Amino acid sequence: MKHFLSVNQFSVDEILSILETASNYKKGYFPIQKQIFAANLFYEPSTRTTMSFNVAQRKLGFDVLDFSVDTSSVQKGESLYDTVKTFEAIGANILIVRHQDDHWYEELHSKLSIPLINAGAGKAEHPTQCMLDLLTIYEEFETFKGINVAICGDIKHSRVAKSNADALKRLGANVYFSAVPGFEDETLPYPYLSMNDAVQTCDVVMLLRIQHERHMYATTNECYLTHYGLTDSREKLMKKHAIIMHPAPVNRNIEIASNLVESKKSRIFKQMTNGVYVRMAIMTQLLKEWGIINEVIIKECEPIVT
Amino acid sequence: MKHFLSVNQFSVDEILSILETASNYKKGYFPIQKQIFAANLFYEPSTRTTMSFNVAQRKLGFDVLDFSVDTSSVQKGESLYDTVKTFEAIGANILIVRHQDDHWYEELHSKLSIPLINAGAGKAEHPTQCMLDLLTIYEEFETFKGINVAICGDIKHSRVAKSNADALKRLGANVYFSAVPGFEDETLPYPYLSMNDAVQTCDVVMLLRIQHERHMYATTNECYLTHYGLTDSREKLMKKHAIIMHPAPVNRNIEIASNLVESKKSRIFKQMTNGVYVRMAIMTQLLKEWGIINEVIIKECEPIVT
Amino acid sequence: MKHFLSVNQFSVDEILSILETASNYKKGYFPIQKQIFAANLFYEPSTRTTMSFNVAQRKLGFDVLDFSVDTSSVQKGESLYDTVKTFEAIGANILIVRHQDDHWYEELHSKLSIPLINAGAGKAEHPTQCMLDLLTIYEEFETFKGINVAICGDIKHSRVAKSNADALKRLGANVYFSAVPGFEDETLPYPYLSMNDAVQTCDVVMLLRIQHERHMYATTNECYLTHYGLTDSREKLMKKHAIIMHPAPVNRNIEIASNLVESKKSRIFKQMTNGVYVRMAIMTQLLKEWGIINEVIIKECEPIVT
Repeated sequence: MKHFLSVNQFSVDEILSILETASNYKKGYFPIQKQIFAANLFYEPSTRTTMSFNVAQRKLGFDVLDFSVDTSSVQKGESLYDTVKTFEAIGANILIVRHQDDHWYEELHSKLSIPLINAGAGKAEHPTQCMLDLLTIYEEFETFKGINVAICGDIKHSRVAKSNADALKRLGANVYFSAVPGFEDETLPYPYLSMNDAVQTCDVVMLLRIQHERHMYATTNECYLTHYGLTDSREKLMKKHAIIMHPAPVNRNIEIASNLVESKKSRIFKQMTNGVYVRMAIMTQLLKEWGIINEVIIKECEPIVT
Repeated sequence: MKHFLSVNQFSVDEILSILETASNYKKGYFPIQKQIFAANLFYEPSTRTTMSFNVAQRKLGFDVLDFSVDTSSVQKGESLYDTVKTFEAIGANILIVRHQDDHWYEELHSKLSIPLINAGAGKAEHPTQCMLDLLTIYEEFETFKGINVAICGDIKHSRVAKSNADALKRLGANVYFSAVPGFEDETLPYPYLSMNDAVQTCDVVMLLRIQHERHMYATTNECYLTHYGLTDSREKLMKKHAIIMHPAPVNRNIEIASNLVESKKSRIFKQMTNGVYVRMAIMTQLLKEWGIINEVIIKECEPIVT
Repeated sequence: MKHFLSVNQFSVDEILSILETASNYKKGYFPIQKQIFAANLFYEPSTRTTMSFNVAQRKLGFDVLDFSVDTSSVQKGESLYDTVKTFEAIGANILIVRHQDDHWYEELHSKLSIPLINAGAGKAEHPTQCMLDLLTIYEEFETFKGINVAICGDIKHSRVAKSNADALKRLGANVYFSAVPGFEDETLPYPYLSMNDAVQTCDVVMLLRIQHERHMYATTNECYLTHYGLTDSREKLMKKHAIIMHPAPVNRNIEIASNLVESKKSRIFKQMTNGVYVRMAIMTQLLKEWGIINEVIIKECEPIVT
């Protein structure tokens, strides 16, 4: 891979290879002797993704350049392209970008001499989130084949839903959607279930965040939880070995009853932990393919304790 | 100690132990072999405290995660609890938090698996500031017993006054307050002196900042300095060995005449320097007690030149 | 040199010495054993300069303290002086400051015990930009003597124009200005050329940025490019070996036709790359002169690939 832009670009084998690398990294970290500069350019608010990349980069011994849109020349009208080329010119070896435009990377990536990672593209894609979700599911079931996954909530506006559904289907899982009326995405070929059916049928109940900052929502919060969210009573209907996932930040008591966020079935914080290792795997794989770093030797030390 | 949340939680011996460690650190720094991630979560503006923790962390060889509220998921409504748990999940080993809520840590600390440091709690407490003030006084007089300390200014709204008065009293000092009418705190058991009496009686004149951002103040600035601040003429009334302290940022010519900020009696910038070593001491002590790091070996090199 | 505040302060030999050091650094980087804290205080937006200093500092193995005005005690009214003294007190070894005041450093620099670098002073000066421009010209022509340089655009409001014109003249170059009517600076002793004459006569066509954020400009953008900017047709009139420079951020299709930004004659991104090495040279030279670091040993490794 030359860049990491979309899960669609990878074959099933390539996806599995990244997951295997990430799993290995959970057993330890490894210093890379060469000085590597990683630049994080986030044009939209983020805690998890930006901090997760940050930790991943430092575990790999990289030097981190955090770019703040608010205090940069973006305020003087500088374009994404010129900003990215600037980082390339001053010595960045790898770029991580989140931007509000669904298609920000399409023209950009072919003009770069260093690898580029998509850390979120508007409402369209969030492929590193997808990879960490896949790792979390794989660690749970040791396979994707035949696993029933329900993706529930605001399907239409979610960049997580699209990437995950496609990748899971290609990996052999059975994907279902569950959405409040009006939040369906008719362009995607997945069957819809009611929330009650979803929790009873599926091995993975993957909740999505109501994106208050992207659109206004007419239903009241309580009403949403009762009709379309994961309540205590719905959780009781889940299979014994089924798990709850959510990309976070969670709207507690909207998508999910607050007490379920850290319940036995929840893998929500484990997803965040997995994000660090998946991003380490993606970055090192890109840097190796570009010839920027050589082989990576894994030493057994210091996993994150979860 | 499991967390560092309030000076009230510590015995006199524990306080003295931290001060001794900090004093040792002033003689040098020491690399810690293990990779430690320190996350700084500041929900209120700060220069001194955030940068002081940053320097302290890097002197200890930590990797620093600076969390910016403005560009984070706090903008999407994420709570302090969920943010803190996120940092825990992605691998932070120690958390430093400043928050506008007086009681932010009360429910939070028992739910964490890593140590937490209170870097400021609304109008209530600022215990690391207290520790650095204590170190500064101790370095000056080599004891707390019988030292007369006047804490002067906006007692009512100061988080520094409460912590310092309590700790100093327990360490054997005599604590006095001096306040402009209306800024007294009747709930605290310390005698009030006029500013003129305070400067003549006390070994330490500890000025507080008028917190413009917390409340409106009716008196004009000039009037404040003349009646309640440390003027040149009041400074001349101070004992030969008495010192001036202030947590900063200083409102020059309000609490204190501008030329006194860097005068012979002033320890204001020394307080800032001491903050680095006190915070190093607090962080390493917490990490040792949690078993996250082992013994710390102090090497003689590179103190900050003051 | 005790501080780096203005190119005017340096003799021709001193300028050449910095350029030589920077050129050497392009051949490799070198770890400095001692822990050095560099603090970057930017009171105005910046991408290139702040990130360039950041990369330069990390290549030198420094610990970087990035100061964000938005989340600092500047919000509580703290002055530049008190902020700078705070960084000195908590252990910074070198300070880099950009500030909107043309004269911010004049009273400040004599009160510091650590070196200070001017990373931009209002509309007056931007001396590190000047040094990187000089390096770029020197690399191209291996001399300054007799080189014809046209500085084109908003001369009046440009901090780059003044510094560069003066330094180039002292180094032996012939300096010309070209400006839209009303943007001349009559106080400076350089002849004015029309844009058509400038491109035909000069070895270096140095374009300036229209500073939208500093003043309103009445002419429309298209009109500006056609009459005063570097169009494709004007580029064709340039000498075979002539080069195009611009401090960036570029207003594409205002000062310069967009396709010329990365054209064969353009050194715009090379200027950014050179900025890293020039800043490394300036910082190490200051730290050596203050006795904060000793000799620097250059090892042959890892130049930025341009």
